[in-house]
Amino acid sequence: MKGADKRKLVTSGGAEDTPRPDKIERSPPVVRVAELEIDPSQLEGYTAAVKEEMEMSVREEPGILAFYCVAEKDCPARLRFFEMYADEAAYKEHIESAKFKKYVETTKAMIVSRKFIDAVRVQLSAGELRRKPDNE
Amino acid sequence: MKGADKRKLVTSGGAEDTPRPDKIERSPPVVRVAELEIDPSQLEGYTAAVKEEMEMSVREEPGILAFYCVAEKDCPARLRFFEMYADEAAYKEHIESAKFKKYVETTKAMIVSRKFIDAVRVQLSAGELRRKPDNE
Repeated sequence: MKGADKRKLVTSGGAEDTPRPDKIERSPPVVRVAELEIDPSQLEGYTAAVKEEMEMSVREEPGILAFYCVAEKDCPARLRFFEMYADEAAYKEHIESAKFKKYVETTKAMIVSRKFIDAVRVQLSAGELRRKPDNE
Repeated sequence: MKGADKRKLVTSGGAEDTPRPDKIERSPPVVRVAELEIDPSQLEGYTAAVKEEMEMSVREEPGILAFYCVAEKDCPARLRFFEMYADEAAYKEHIESAKFKKYVETTKAMIVSRKFIDAVRVQLSAGELRRKPDNE
């Protein structure tokens, strides 16, 4: 089976029009790393809001290559984010989107502290994305 | 095509033979987060070793879903890793592999400090992987 045929099967949920990431990965991806501590009494509300925002964003913005959020096992209110965008424009598109602004507004009173780390790519390899960006 | 057949094709080197991650993502993925500080005078050697190890691992182990390493922009010797495996078995396969052991041996004198964070998934969404694991 050819790659193109595979794509059709993979995206049968209506995402057929989404460009393939290899088409939009001409420039180096932008990586954002963040650490957030959430007010434990509001963790459930925060988690619901951030999950909804992440899910919608990945569905609607093809420039988002990866959007990961994990909690520290020993301290579930401490969250770590790893975000990868196709390029600077994709990152800007995201932070200027209505859903991101809504998320910021909804959650600002739930966040105790936040730390953003400007990250420089060393190696970015992934399963389905194995041909890109580093493994071509 | 059965999962076992696909796994065989993985190693043939052609991108079209890459297995679909949905075939190997039946159980929740295992996420590992690590922060390493490298001896600045050995950073070049460390980077070469870790890039080689990451690239080979993703190519040879279909259970690795994502293998990301970034450096802090303001402190390039501080590295952050985000690793996602299909399941616990895939993680074990990796850390027991000869290439991982070789990497550990090669780099142990280059690492000043290391911190591993046991991570619990909150939301894991990615472009090409959009239907999985969280967006089905």
